[in-house]
Amino acid sequence: MNTPAHSRSWVTSANGHADFPLQNLPLGVFSRGDSARRGGVAIGDSIFDLQAALAAGFFNGAARGAAEAASRDQLNDFFALGAHGRRALRSELLHLLDEHSPQRARLQASSKLLLHPMSECQLHMPARVGDYTDFYVGIHHAMNVGKLFRPDNPLLPNYKYVPIAYHGRASTLCVSGSPVKRPDGQTLPPDQDVPQFGPCKRLDYELEMGVWVGPGNPDGEPIGIADAQQHIAGLCLLNDWSARDLQAWEYQPLGPFLSKSFATTLSPWVVTAEALAPFRCPQPARPEGDPQPLPYLLDEADQQGGALDIELEVLLLTRQMKAQGLPAQVLARSNTLNMYWTVAQMLTHHSVNGCKLQPGDLFGTGTLSGPQPGQFGSLLEMTEGGKHTVELPSGEVRRFLEDGDEVILRARCQREGQVSIGFGECRGVVVG
Amino acid sequence: MNTPAHSRSWVTSANGHADFPLQNLPLGVFSRGDSARRGGVAIGDSIFDLQAALAAGFFNGAARGAAEAASRDQLNDFFALGAHGRRALRSELLHLLDEHSPQRARLQASSKLLLHPMSECQLHMPARVGDYTDFYVGIHHAMNVGKLFRPDNPLLPNYKYVPIAYHGRASTLCVSGSPVKRPDGQTLPPDQDVPQFGPCKRLDYELEMGVWVGPGNPDGEPIGIADAQQHIAGLCLLNDWSARDLQAWEYQPLGPFLSKSFATTLSPWVVTAEALAPFRCPQPARPEGDPQPLPYLLDEADQQGGALDIELEVLLLTRQMKAQGLPAQVLARSNTLNMYWTVAQMLTHHSVNGCKLQPGDLFGTGTLSGPQPGQFGSLLEMTEGGKHTVELPSGEVRRFLEDGDEVILRARCQREGQVSIGFGECRGVVVG
Repeated sequence: MNTPAHSRSWVTSANGHADFPLQNLPLGVFSRGDSARRGGVAIGDSIFDLQAALAAGFFNGAARGAAEAASRDQLNDFFALGAHGRRALRSELLHLLDEHSPQRARLQASSKLLLHPMSECQLHMPARVGDYTDFYVGIHHAMNVGKLFRPDNPLLPNYKYVPIAYHGRASTLCVSGSPVKRPDGQTLPPDQDVPQFGPCKRLDYELEMGVWVGPGNPDGEPIGIADAQQHIAGLCLLNDWSARDLQAWEYQPLGPFLSKSFATTLSPWVVTAEALAPFRCPQPARPEGDPQPLPYLLDEADQQGGALDIELEVLLLTRQMKAQGLPAQVLARSNTLNMYWTVAQMLTHHSVNGCKLQPGDLFGTGTLSGPQPGQFGSLLEMTEGGKHTVELPSGEVRRFLEDGDEVILRARCQREGQVSIGFGECRGVVVG
Repeated sequence: MNTPAHSRSWVTSANGHADFPLQNLPLGVFSRGDSARRGGVAIGDSIFDLQAALAAGFFNGAARGAAEAASRDQLNDFFALGAHGRRALRSELLHLLDEHSPQRARLQASSKLLLHPMSECQLHMPARVGDYTDFYVGIHHAMNVGKLFRPDNPLLPNYKYVPIAYHGRASTLCVSGSPVKRPDGQTLPPDQDVPQFGPCKRLDYELEMGVWVGPGNPDGEPIGIADAQQHIAGLCLLNDWSARDLQAWEYQPLGPFLSKSFATTLSPWVVTAEALAPFRCPQPARPEGDPQPLPYLLDEADQQGGALDIELEVLLLTRQMKAQGLPAQVLARSNTLNMYWTVAQMLTHHSVNGCKLQPGDLFGTGTLSGPQPGQFGSLLEMTEGGKHTVELPSGEVRRFLEDGDEVILRARCQREGQVSIGFGECRGVVVG
């Protein structure tokens, strides 16, 4: 399964590509012009068209079944195949797209059919999400937000035992590039007793990763921690847009609702568990005095290799910055090592009560802030609830997002001796 | 559209039937033996088979299209048609099933094909639920629960302005009769700092109504309060099983999660907005001193006729009571007039931030307790958090549910001059 780390592709834009070298091969759903939605694989600046490749007879055996499942207008059937299907497809793709592929000449002869310039394609939601769950595993975010509300006791007593989460809204998940309409809602003005209704004034982003669930547990049988990895198909970027003023007024006692359900943006490419394997690492040691996870969340292999080393960044590009030709400004850099719980622990906890998980279910990790300024994954944290401003190269300042602001999330894995891979972008412009 | 209130059916079991007289005609999805799932209509002790009736040519015009949509293995397409489709189908069914129907002889000749004894059928989930939202509009429940946690300040300041809700888990919705497995999870034993893991010890039911969403708002355009009724397809019973010990430990700060997501049981029959029309009534006056709803939630027609007068009851039948031949014991009686917000207000609030609603989305109302003992819709309220016991005719007592306990919800509409209609039952047995 492991490819020589430095294999190159005959799709020359892949070699040295920041996101999509041969070693990545993320899956997504695309269309070009008026053509139907179908599954494809990102390779360099192009999309490899799985339907066209199937039609041209390029897949056989187990890889053919997996390619068929991945070629539809949603990846749910592919996710349901699990690691066996993903690996069969990946192995064949690595073989076909390698610069030394015996089929290179035949592939190149059909490249107009097989490869589409990504810039000429539309990318769509990669799967039909049954249920969406948003976790809260970024401990520094939980601390930063907790400090705003409870300076003496920022972290609640359950945090170090329970991978905290809440159910999110699946219907308003959308793909990178979709405009995000500023929501209306009820807010309580400072020092008043009566709420008012109108557009959100404290609109924020949240820097998260998304986790795509592969095979589910059809009978609602809990998934043991040692088996959890088998149920994870891949990852993407996720922006959990948040209306802070709506949230503050509505969230007691049952949690966030309309403050989150107006939009959640995903990056279109599913970076598979296999592509991420070289970037797995031991779970960072818990600070001294922190409790051990309860036994159902504890597994030696997960402790040793269940964490991920993914560099994250969030950028802002205002309308004025665009007009001035300025590039997007990095607001924060963080890393998935700021997760207090692994993806396997999230999944096992989710299923432990018999809750049914299904292929295409989605988890958000929660905001992945780091401990230091410059590593905060939301404006709420950067501005301490709007107390300070963020200065931009255009001379503008921000406490929260303004109409026309574009938020861009990026993620990238780099490691000595490995070809780097990336997630592409998760973008959204706020519209009034 | 209004049928003579006392019309009778040639399906004789319908006449005087507690739940399903000719005036009700709720829709559901059933199968018989090994046959495929399909849509049907409850009439007395029977199910009228829409596929069979279509095949025999009994529907024409608009009713035919609606009957086709309602005859599938889920009612989503039918819900999407809205009031026009529902009314066309209802009108034709009232005509066909009336004792004076000109088609009576032809229908009765085919009755073996058209009518199935309900007792010989399996009932299934009526629709594929995209998103499930649980509200909290039972103000007495909110008060009763609030008193347990905040005796001096039981109702939070947002309650009388915001129709409070949280996102629920769609994947573990199940139909009446499905066993409910006692969930495992983390709980914090009294006076301890470290949680333990094991089976829930404080398992509870919640007496709720379910609301099926009809046409959605595809572009996420808010649905005005005056239009909200057009988006409601019908109602059912809903038992929001709750693991109180898991809930107490997990719910801060993001709300209930695993304490609810193991199971939510629905009654199988969708009682349509049209069948409920005679039981609409003015919204009960808010107590003196309560604020008016904000303008986006205020509509004269909704104030005058947006509430529903539905009598509710919850019953318990233990394993021992069954063995002793005892009938189920009524634990509480309540009414949908205990809702602080109308169904229209719930729907409008849900969409006001641009959240997409889709046909087949489901709302729970929240627990519909009354103000008095004997009207409490959960054991948490009846036993004041386990302080007291409930005595049963078998000599047993309960603080919370034991394995083998069956919880039964019922609902019924009665009004002077109208034929009463009912919802059937929502049942579930707890298994260990």
